[in-house]
Amino acid sequence: MKKLLIFIAISVFINVFTGCAPNADTNDKTSKQADPLASWNTGKSKNSIINYVADVTNPDSKNFIAISDRIATFDNDGNLWSEQPAYFQLFFAIDRVKALAPEHPEWKTVQPFKAVLENDMAALVKQGEHGLIQLVMATHAGNTTEEFEGYVKDWISTAKHPTKNVGYDKLVYQPMLELLQYLRANDFKTYIVSGGGVDFMRAIVTEVYGIPAEQIIGSRIKTQFDYNNGDPEIIRIAELDFIDDKEGKPLNIQKIIGKKPVFASGNSDGDLQMLQWTASNKHKSFMLYVHHTDSIREWAYDRDSHIGRLDKGLDEANKKGWTVIDMEKDWKIIYPFELD
Amino acid sequence: MKKLLIFIAISVFINVFTGCAPNADTNDKTSKQADPLASWNTGKSKNSIINYVADVTNPDSKNFIAISDRIATFDNDGNLWSEQPAYFQLFFAIDRVKALAPEHPEWKTVQPFKAVLENDMAALVKQGEHGLIQLVMATHAGNTTEEFEGYVKDWISTAKHPTKNVGYDKLVYQPMLELLQYLRANDFKTYIVSGGGVDFMRAIVTEVYGIPAEQIIGSRIKTQFDYNNGDPEIIRIAELDFIDDKEGKPLNIQKIIGKKPVFASGNSDGDLQMLQWTASNKHKSFMLYVHHTDSIREWAYDRDSHIGRLDKGLDEANKKGWTVIDMEKDWKIIYPFELD
Repeated sequence: MKKLLIFIAISVFINVFTGCAPNADTNDKTSKQADPLASWNTGKSKNSIINYVADVTNPDSKNFIAISDRIATFDNDGNLWSEQPAYFQLFFAIDRVKALAPEHPEWKTVQPFKAVLENDMAALVKQGEHGLIQLVMATHAGNTTEEFEGYVKDWISTAKHPTKNVGYDKLVYQPMLELLQYLRANDFKTYIVSGGGVDFMRAIVTEVYGIPAEQIIGSRIKTQFDYNNGDPEIIRIAELDFIDDKEGKPLNIQKIIGKKPVFASGNSDGDLQMLQWTASNKHKSFMLYVHHTDSIREWAYDRDSHIGRLDKGLDEANKKGWTVIDMEKDWKIIYPFELD
Repeated sequence: MKKLLIFIAISVFINVFTGCAPNADTNDKTSKQADPLASWNTGKSKNSIINYVADVTNPDSKNFIAISDRIATFDNDGNLWSEQPAYFQLFFAIDRVKALAPEHPEWKTVQPFKAVLENDMAALVKQGEHGLIQLVMATHAGNTTEEFEGYVKDWISTAKHPTKNVGYDKLVYQPMLELLQYLRANDFKTYIVSGGGVDFMRAIVTEVYGIPAEQIIGSRIKTQFDYNNGDPEIIRIAELDFIDDKEGKPLNIQKIIGKKPVFASGNSDGDLQMLQWTASNKHKSFMLYVHHTDSIREWAYDRDSHIGRLDKGLDEANKKGWTVIDMEKDWKIIYPFELD
């Protein structure tokens, strides 16, 4: 059960809310039209990506990869959008508890709901993992897939990040949007493979990343088919079905895609097995870690963080020569709104 | 556990081997170039398909469907290829038991393996469902995903159907190949959603149907990630993970595709929930049943068959006006080799 921490980290509220207003250098827009990775500073990371793509898409190269094998998998939290001070899905759960509270008067006196309703984060942390599971199940289950999609869409259209004070879907990484687009322009099929809930992501990210629902893989709760007198529904059940983290990532990739990726990108130890799996591809493959090094424009954390811990992964990346993005140095801007 | 019968019907050997040499009318090839469904006889079934596709792909129609929502799901056994006198995957399991027998001298005296090795089908049937599960687990698990793919590819390259005496992959339905291609030419995304084993299908059908691995959904056994000293493998475990039949089909479609199909095709009661789910689409949808009515060129069976039973589904199709293909009358030819 420890793995549940993937999408609802216990430690979430211990982290200090250190977010600062964005303050990026957006002056260098001169080469934007010509450069598919315009928000990336010139340097080793950017070059390694461009060289890799040029090589494996060159029919004359010994490393050429057929289009059908150009599978690229991306973690979501901390890799395509921010994940501090807590996974954004937890903010959804908290907001949903508050929205549902009138229907549940008993929550005023029952933990973990009492803590949420009283904004008592210390008390919530005390409920531990069991409390967090209760929170997720109470807010994510007991509805139809269609209803749940509506709840998430409603939430994302109004909710604001607690410190950045913009919509959560504004906190995607512009350099990664460019990378996704660059890969697709070179006939890679881009997937999300995330510990986050698959239906939560699907309701949000297709428009943001240009990735369709069928290319989003994530954690799931169980579901049940209800014939419903000829108007069938799929009901979401308060029980875990699959946790898409660590070993779960390559397993789910094999189950759902059935092909080994040639390109994989993550930011935490939870992505390590996906990168190892990708590194074992018989085709030339590319392993990318996003290292959170920018305490001013985003957040800086790695080996000791309770969210998105990058420790073993960082060692292995360094040892094996995988590309490690230094957010502070490699990225000209972080968020798309810095371009406005 | 009754559902296991999906891909290994107990009754498989009770069925009489009634296959006959193909004897199709292949004279009418005149309109083939112009007609995307050349192997279909003109009539209600063919017209209903063409009218549907023309309508929902017409931007001026009130029934227009955006390309991203054009999801078409197809059952495999009995819908895209034959399934008599037994699901072809069972023949693979039997042949594999024989291939593995030298490594398992104990199988000579232990059921259900003894029955297989002695070609004693009556004794095999007596082992019941438990025996068949043993058969599948002994032949499908205990190897890596890569090894298993190799076993299936080796088998399909040499194995012959017991009565038709051609490779199993030759027993696909030419009219359905044309339908798949016709839908793709109209920007539908074609998926297989089958009770058959997903990795068994993936090793065979991509080349046959033009459907990539990531658009094949099926039943699964469990898997395990093995780091294997830096050369990671995914090991197939002798335990069921998901049975992709009946309610399992819409559930898996939602889990993996995340969109409701607008077009679905099946041939048995095991496909009924998928068709019901498709019928509930807010977009205009198309539900198709293949009815096995041709005892000469293929096999004739429906309400009483142990394989591919079509009973409740036939009633619901008739009641709701879904399209039911009469194989004998609607299909000019059945198999591609009839065109040779």
